[in-house]
Parts: sequence; C-alpha cells; structure tokens
Amino acid sequence: MNERLVVIGGCAAGMSAASKARRLNPDLEIVVYERTGFVSYGSCGLPYYVSGLIDDHNTLVVRTPAQFAKRDIQVHLHHEVTEIDTENRRVLVDDLLNEGGATRGRYESYDKLLVATGGRPIMLPDFSLGDLAGVFVMRAVEDGVATREFIQHERPKKAVIIGAGYIGLEMAESFHELGLETTVIGRPPQVLKRFDSDMAQIVQDELESKGIRLSLGDEVKALEGDAQGRVRRVTSSKGAFEADLVLLAMGVQPNAAMAESAGVALGQTGAIATDSQMRTNLPHVFAAGDCAEAHHRITGHGDYIPLGTTANKQGRVAGTNLGGGQAEFEGIVGTAITKVLDVYAALSGLSEKEARALGYRVQSTTIKAGSRAHYYPGGRPMHVKLVVEEGSGRLLGGQIVGDEGASLRIDVLATALHQGMTIEELSRLDLAYVPPIAPVWDPLLVAANVALKE
Amino acid sequence: MNERLVVIGGCAAGMSAASKARRLNPDLEIVVYERTGFVSYGSCGLPYYVSGLIDDHNTLVVRTPAQFAKRDIQVHLHHEVTEIDTENRRVLVDDLLNEGGATRGRYESYDKLLVATGGRPIMLPDFSLGDLAGVFVMRAVEDGVATREFIQHERPKKAVIIGAGYIGLEMAESFHELGLETTVIGRPPQVLKRFDSDMAQIVQDELESKGIRLSLGDEVKALEGDAQGRVRRVTSSKGAFEADLVLLAMGVQPNAAMAESAGVALGQTGAIATDSQMRTNLPHVFAAGDCAEAHHRITGHGDYIPLGTTANKQGRVAGTNLGGGQAEFEGIVGTAITKVLDVYAALSGLSEKEARALGYRVQSTTIKAGSRAHYYPGGRPMHVKLVVEEGSGRLLGGQIVGDEGASLRIDVLATALHQGMTIEELSRLDLAYVPPIAPVWDPLLVAANVALKE
Repeated sequence: MNERLVVIGGCAAGMSAASKARRLNPDLEIVVYERTGFVSYGSCGLPYYVSGLIDDHNTLVVRTPAQFAKRDIQVHLHHEVTEIDTENRRVLVDDLLNEGGATRGRYESYDKLLVATGGRPIMLPDFSLGDLAGVFVMRAVEDGVATREFIQHERPKKAVIIGAGYIGLEMAESFHELGLETTVIGRPPQVLKRFDSDMAQIVQDELESKGIRLSLGDEVKALEGDAQGRVRRVTSSKGAFEADLVLLAMGVQPNAAMAESAGVALGQTGAIATDSQMRTNLPHVFAAGDCAEAHHRITGHGDYIPLGTTANKQGRVAGTNLGGGQAEFEGIVGTAITKVLDVYAALSGLSEKEARALGYRVQSTTIKAGSRAHYYPGGRPMHVKLVVEEGSGRLLGGQIVGDEGASLRIDVLATALHQGMTIEELSRLDLAYVPPIAPVWDPLLVAANVALKE
Repeated sequence: MNERLVVIGGCAAGMSAASKARRLNPDLEIVVYERTGFVSYGSCGLPYYVSGLIDDHNTLVVRTPAQFAKRDIQVHLHHEVTEIDTENRRVLVDDLLNEGGATRGRYESYDKLLVATGGRPIMLPDFSLGDLAGVFVMRAVEDGVATREFIQHERPKKAVIIGAGYIGLEMAESFHELGLETTVIGRPPQVLKRFDSDMAQIVQDELESKGIRLSLGDEVKALEGDAQGRVRRVTSSKGAFEADLVLLAMGVQPNAAMAESAGVALGQTGAIATDSQMRTNLPHVFAAGDCAEAHHRITGHGDYIPLGTTANKQGRVAGTNLGGGQAEFEGIVGTAITKVLDVYAALSGLSEKEARALGYRVQSTTIKAGSRAHYYPGGRPMHVKLVVEEGSGRLLGGQIVGDEGASLRIDVLATALHQGMTIEELSRLDLAYVPPIAPVWDPLLVAANVALKE
C-alpha cells in the first residue's frame, strides 16, 4: 500500500506542500482537510475584494480542488480535523456539511502528517463572532464574502476597525473607498507596531489626511448592539464610537492548540517549533505556515511573523522533505510591505525598538530623499531608516515609507540582511540609476553613507 | 603654501571629488577647469529637457560655480586643459571665451591632479559637428539647449537617430513625444547591445508599436545636406532616410588621449587604468569617471561602462584619497536601467552572450511573470532573465524588462551579484509581498526556482 500524507489546512503552506510532495513522489497518497470552503487562496487580496476592486472572490483562488484532483491530490473542503492521535497515526475528522454528523467524526490514518492549520484572528475577550450582526474578521474567503454582502445589503455608514496592523489599515482603505466613515482603534500608541514610531507617523498622517480617524493608545471595552442584535457602538478607554460595521483586526495567533494537545512542542512564541526541514518534535509530523515559527536570520531565534511568503516557502520545504527530497528553510528576515491609501510602508529585519529590546547596541539613521532624479517631475519623497549594530556595523534592519518604487527597495535591504552585510558594504552597492525612477545616488546609498558618517 | 589640487572636468566625477576633498581638507586649494559652460549637471536628464518635460535646463544643475565658490572650490567654466606636463606638475589651460586668446594657453601648477575628462560621443568617420546644420550629439547641457532650440525654431518633421543604445532610445522617446517622425538606425542587429537579443526584442516591440521606425543591423554611410548646409538625408547600407534632424548617439569613448600623451597608462578598454584608490600609474595623478576604467566584480577585470553612478562613486573615492583620507572603489557589477516609452529595461552583471564570450559555461533562464498578485487589477507582465555559471551555480547576471517596479528589482540582483551569491541563495531570499505591487512569489524568486530546476 502506498504511503499516505495527510495535510491539515489547505491554504498557502498546506497546498504548497501537497503540490511539491506530489511532484517528487507520484506514489504518495495525499489527502488535504480544509475547514473552510476554499483552498489555495490569497487571503491578502480580501481587502481588495471587499472594496470591489476585485470583482469575483473566485479570482483569489489559485487552484481549485478539481485542479488539485487532476494532480491526484484529494481535497476535502468543509472538513475539520479536531484531534491528532500520533500514537495510532490518525486524525479525527468532522465533515462540517454533514448535518447532524458534525459531532461524530471519523478517524483517518496517516503515515506522515503536515500541520498547516494557519493562524486565527485574535478575538476580544468575552465576545464571539455571531454575538452581534455586523461584526467581522478578515481571514477566510468567507469572511470577505460576508463583509461585502453585509455592506451591499445593509449599507452601513460608520465602520470601526479594531486593530491598526496590516489588515486593519488595508481594510480601512477599503471601507474608506466604499464611502464609509472609518475609525481605527489601536492599543499601541502607533499604527503598524513592528515599525518605529517615526516611520509609523508618516502612515498615520496619510490616514488622517484622507479623513480616516485614528484612536491610538486606546483599548476597546465592549461592542454594544441594538435590540435586533446589530452592532451599534464600540466603547473604549478613550470614549465611544458609533458603528454599524465593526472589523476585528487585532492580529493573528497560531492555530496550534490541537497540535499541542497531541504532544507537538511549541516554541516560545506559542507557535509550533520546527527544525529547518519543518519537522516537529514528533516523528512523522511536520508543520508549516502561520501555525509555525520561522527561524529569524538576524536574531537567530524562532519568531512568529505570519505572512504568506513564509507560509509558501515553508510549505515547499515541508513538501520536498515529505515527498522524499531534501530541503531546508533558511529562515526569514521579516520582510513585509503594506499599502495604505497612497503610501507604502515596508520593513525588513529589526526595527530600532525591536533591536534595542533584544539588547543590541544600535545606531539608527533616517533620511528623506527623492525617489527620482531631483529634476524629474512628479517625484515624491521617500523615507528610509536604517538600523545598524554599533561596533560591527552590521545592518540589523531597514524601514521605508514612500511610493511603490520606494517600498520595493526594501528587497535590497532584505537581500543585504539575508547576507549579513555591513552598512559599509551596503554603501558600495552598484544600484541602478535612471532619472524617472531613481536618482544617481539611490536613497538607500544616501542613507548608508549618512549612517557611515554618524 | 597650501597644496593645490587641479581637477580637469567638472561633471559628476570631478565635482564629487572636489567636494569630498574639500570636506576632508579645508586647507587644500582646489581648482576645477571645465570646458563647457556648466559643472555638476545631470546629463542623463537631457532627453527630458529636450522633450520639454523639464522646462529649464538650469534645473539639471545640482550646484553652480557660485555655490562651489562658497565652499572655496574655484570653478573655471569654458576653460579647456590641453596638455598635462607631469614632469613640472602643471597643466596648459585655454580660456575658450578669451577671444583671440584661445590658442595662447597659460600654465597652471598642481600638486595633485585629477583627470575627470569624461567621455566623448563617438563620431561618424569623415564628419564633424558643424559640417551640417541640424546634426547634434547629446552630452553637454549645451547640446540639449541647441537641440531644443533647433526644434523650436526650425520645426523639423523627421528625425533620424544614429545609435540604438541608452541615449539613442531615450532621445527617440523625446522626439516621438514632440511629434517627430522618428527612425533609429543601429549597427548591431538589436537595440541595447549589452542586453541579450530576446530581452532587447521586447524593447524593440515597444518602440515599433508606438510608431518609431527601427533599422537595425544597418550601417550609416553618409549624412547629406542641402544647398543651405542643412541636413536632409541619411544614407545607410539598407537605404536612405529623409531627415531634417539627426542625432549622433553611437556611444561614448573615454576622453583619455591627453592623459595618455602625458604618460598616463590606459587599460585594455582604452580608458585610463587606475588602482582601487583611483590612482593612475603616475604619482600625483588620479582619474575618475567616464575617462577611466572600473573594476568589474564579476569578471575581475577593468571594464568600461561609463555611467553617472560609477562616476559619482569613483569621484568620491578619488576625492577622499586626494583630501588625505582613505577610500577604495569596490567596483561595479554593471547595473543600468533605461526607460523607453512605457517599458523599462534593466540589467546587472553579464548578459548571456557577454558571459559566453568571456568563456563562462552558463545556463540561462527566462521567465515571464506578473509584477503583482495575479488577482490584483492592472498588473503587467515582467520578463526576468538570469544567467548562472554552470557547476558553481553562481549568479553572473540578470536582465529585467517591465514596468517601474519590475525594473527596480534589478537592484536585488545587483546586490546578489555584488555579494557573489548563488542562484540557490537567491531563491531563498525573504522578499516582500503586497498584492498591488508584488506577488507572493516574487518574479525574481520564480526565476531563481526555475533556474534551479533546469
């Protein structure tokens, strides 16, 4: 009998792994259980589906279950794994659409298991989705569909977003473009908490200049509804905000409780710990994606920065090893970009405050420079911040806020960070120049040269 | 008496050096002789001045002689150095505006000399600028001014550009935008000869689709004028082209003859050879910019790829050493971008044909991918070509053709090339993802992964 790989979770990590394992091993039986109605979808596109920029939610799907079936990968939608029994190498599966049967699961055996259960939105204490109509999260395709349908049918006027991270701000843009009066409440005193406050301030200015209200350093106390059970108000430590639409966007936590119950070891972050081949502490059990840690190349420790890029790469590594090949995940440097209205904010490596909190002695340099030759019309300022380790001169991180071209330069810093380059090496790079999109001294080189002087 | 630094040539390299030397050494006497009427200007902006996108040619100037004077740097415009006398450490200088005195030069002494004489446009044999009205080159600010004035006053209808390199194509865009019927004649069978022909083809398609005529693999025989001495026709091996405006854009050669006559050694490229501190073979004589070679980090040899980025960096290194500091130029990887109408073409390192010509055993991979998430509207294809050394897997070069964001990714490849990274290391980079401008697998990673498979 052929070996059987069971994959729990069919988003980026799970389906990347399944695809890769299939390419390497045509004989492996591959079965994927996915709780929602979709696999292999780009959840990062949901804000643009809600805003209407993307018309059909099906375009977010890269491959359908039918397409996976053609590659001999069995996908079971609306199937939730509720228990992992590592002793007997089996999982307990609920068919969520089988009415009345949802509580009676069936056991399915595996030879190898991939836990790709992803992350789950952090919730308010004492609140469950469904307690009030008009309250949403943004994670699965169904979340986007429900939010968009609610907006189309209920025509809300005032949106409150709880959480000022990537999803919160991207959804603020969506709601704003739909004409909703939008407020973002965030607990930290700034948006985008991984960024340093000086860089976050530029994003805040952009939001406020476009009429999006921010209430930062503010803690939500309760969501209040009307007699019909529809959300009407958000009360917080700073006051109360009328709302007929609320989005909970307080971040994501690893969906790792089931694996932990089965004996899978978690790391200090609370996500599943793996080695570089994506193996957990248990034989035959791998983990990848938003439920797992990723090795951070700068700190040398396991970190939890759940992003689609990492999930895809970890999934591919896990799939290679599960399919009989050999691959290692080399780790992340924490690269991310977000678009907020007309501004892009990008970072890679450690922010200044992160570096200091970790005990590094650092020097930071921030510059504002044109993203084009000074004489070329239409240029917009870009802000670059570099964080450098004192003594060694090693680049520890970079942040960029500006337009599209500005923010894409983060990939140069990501490459430098991946390679462990010093600020001096960075300053010597032969970067491109063409007046319409890059000045003769690229802003990254300007920043590096300023950092060297300081 | 204070030491005296004489700088020959006041463009990027010369003025960067003068500025840097001044910052390091307040006592140095610094004198710059510049043949044209401008120093410290961005000649790469000239196409946009000719097209009218940039209104005033003075905006191309970064700093004026008066501004340099405030830093105690003496700039002499319209002064041409015609001889270097290294034995007596002096240069022979002609004041070009001193009527009747242009032939009678004066000697000026130096303690240290920087040759920053730049490049000069390659000319047609048996033809001099001035032989016919309506024929221009594009190098000095005066060239741009003369061309624009000619267009405004003479209203030419048909432009022929001889040369299909960066300047030729950028000027083709300018002429096209001014409504001129534009033909580009090029001797190689493709535009942008450093690029591989498959990538150049995409640029050619863009030019032709917008109505710019190309005659490639074609050699100009003669420029023909009318009785009034105005250019009227360009004859070539492939035929004849009517023209009332002709631009000579056959590239640039190092302006090194005077230095060579003084005993300064040239490299194999015909440009001045220097060490990493920008010293020539002669004591007290440095060279930088388009008259000099640059160490190419991939080949390990001196190369001649005259670009403003390199001129600025070399000038800064020379200025540091001339000012009493210590700096080394780490070399280039040959990074360049050009914008041609709605397409950007970028390269870094070696093209496939360059690598093969140098004897490398290479494998090349070309992919076409979206520059955004597949579901995000408005995405445009980008083309990535990677050239990899067989066996070692070392990246030797990359080429990108696409939009702004696509082409800026060349800087990631430039960084990888600078660091000597392998294609496998490239494939593992933690590059950014945000649906509006980057897909979850960045096209660079896709290309690297395809290259790894091949």
